[in-house]
Amino acid sequence: MPQAVLLDISGVLYQDTSPLPGSVDAVARLQSKGYPLRLVTNTSRLTTAEIHRQLSGMGYLIAPEQIYSAPRAMRHYLESHRLRPYCLIHRNLEEEFADLLEEPAPNAVVIGDAAERFDYLHLERAFHLLLAGAPLLAMGVNRYFKLEGALRLDAGPFVRALEYAAGVQAKVLGKPSPAFFQGALDELGVSAEQALMIGDDIESDVLGAQRAGLHGCLVQTGKYRAGDEAQAPGALLARDLAEAVRRYC
Amino acid sequence: MPQAVLLDISGVLYQDTSPLPGSVDAVARLQSKGYPLRLVTNTSRLTTAEIHRQLSGMGYLIAPEQIYSAPRAMRHYLESHRLRPYCLIHRNLEEEFADLLEEPAPNAVVIGDAAERFDYLHLERAFHLLLAGAPLLAMGVNRYFKLEGALRLDAGPFVRALEYAAGVQAKVLGKPSPAFFQGALDELGVSAEQALMIGDDIESDVLGAQRAGLHGCLVQTGKYRAGDEAQAPGALLARDLAEAVRRYC
Repeated sequence: MPQAVLLDISGVLYQDTSPLPGSVDAVARLQSKGYPLRLVTNTSRLTTAEIHRQLSGMGYLIAPEQIYSAPRAMRHYLESHRLRPYCLIHRNLEEEFADLLEEPAPNAVVIGDAAERFDYLHLERAFHLLLAGAPLLAMGVNRYFKLEGALRLDAGPFVRALEYAAGVQAKVLGKPSPAFFQGALDELGVSAEQALMIGDDIESDVLGAQRAGLHGCLVQTGKYRAGDEAQAPGALLARDLAEAVRRYC
Repeated sequence: MPQAVLLDISGVLYQDTSPLPGSVDAVARLQSKGYPLRLVTNTSRLTTAEIHRQLSGMGYLIAPEQIYSAPRAMRHYLESHRLRPYCLIHRNLEEEFADLLEEPAPNAVVIGDAAERFDYLHLERAFHLLLAGAPLLAMGVNRYFKLEGALRLDAGPFVRALEYAAGVQAKVLGKPSPAFFQGALDELGVSAEQALMIGDDIESDVLGAQRAGLHGCLVQTGKYRAGDEAQAPGALLARDLAEAVRRYC
């Protein structure tokens, strides 16, 4: 039995605009049992406030401070390193980074899931900053996510494109970075081996958690594709969050 | 002394719209000495006919059949494998691939230097075809090229993005594929160790040629960046094509 639980959001709590069956009750059960809990997400198409608003609208009883997001970790990093970011991020996220000025000139490249903003001109601007020595900071390196039945390109492929173009390696601020998991664990006051991470992304959620010392559980909802579990032999497996909570918490 | 010479074009014969100093004379000298010669290029922003027209306009005496291009190798591969390509290529190149039909449905993804067409929607279309099992065929994996003083993103970063997104590996039809060099050597009727490849791209031109068994010579024009030669210790080095031909041919 874990002493604390970390949950991915998209594909675990909801799909598109609907909660997944049994997930609202499963979270309520974790909360009523008093589990220290964090929702850990690389989602960078939505602000934390918007994520909280959507989850509340679906019936989830979550405090805003229980959401630990990659954009939040990114902001913290930029501020503590006094960096001036060029942000290739989604328009929805702009307000959360608007006060971080680029002037006199950007000295860091920040990549989130920028969706249609991933175009040649924006990527080339980032490329030139990288050549000039700016670090490449990524909210995540997820390959894809699922939206309205289709797999959509996430930030990861574009991070890889820029790494290859400029011959650099990105620093990942979100999952699967061990520092990201540790940041959430620090808030909960538990050690890695006491915590269980439940997610639908075999790499960012499950393998990432395992490498950071947590237990990992893969759910077969969201972006899960048959056979994903073969990549993480030591991981727990559950049909969905409801089953994961019933069996492992 | 080599028995045959292969030359890269952009950054070796010309930069932007001007021949590089001494290069026209150097090519004339190679031709007058009777060297079997091929201009080998991954350029996929121009048709072979247009490359020939531009070179002729600069004073180069080259026969069209001496240009051995990645798009030409790609066409040959598609035809011999009877593939129906989804082409993410530059608009200038469309006419060379227009007769290769996508109907009833594309079963291969072809990537050239598509420039501004590398956008989220086109890349996502390619991604979905790759997930459905289409092979990823690249004219090159060059990181960047130089145009009007600036380094511009080439096809390579976008090939890497798609490889990462779909978990596949691209087949490269242009440089640095050994098969591409071999195709040019076959036309010239020489073996690899008899041939010298001269180029400004340390990876595609020089390391690629060396791996295919040719001798490689790096010139310090075009996209050359200080220190590139450290990546290929066995390579010849010259300030430009004129010096390379004077010293090594």
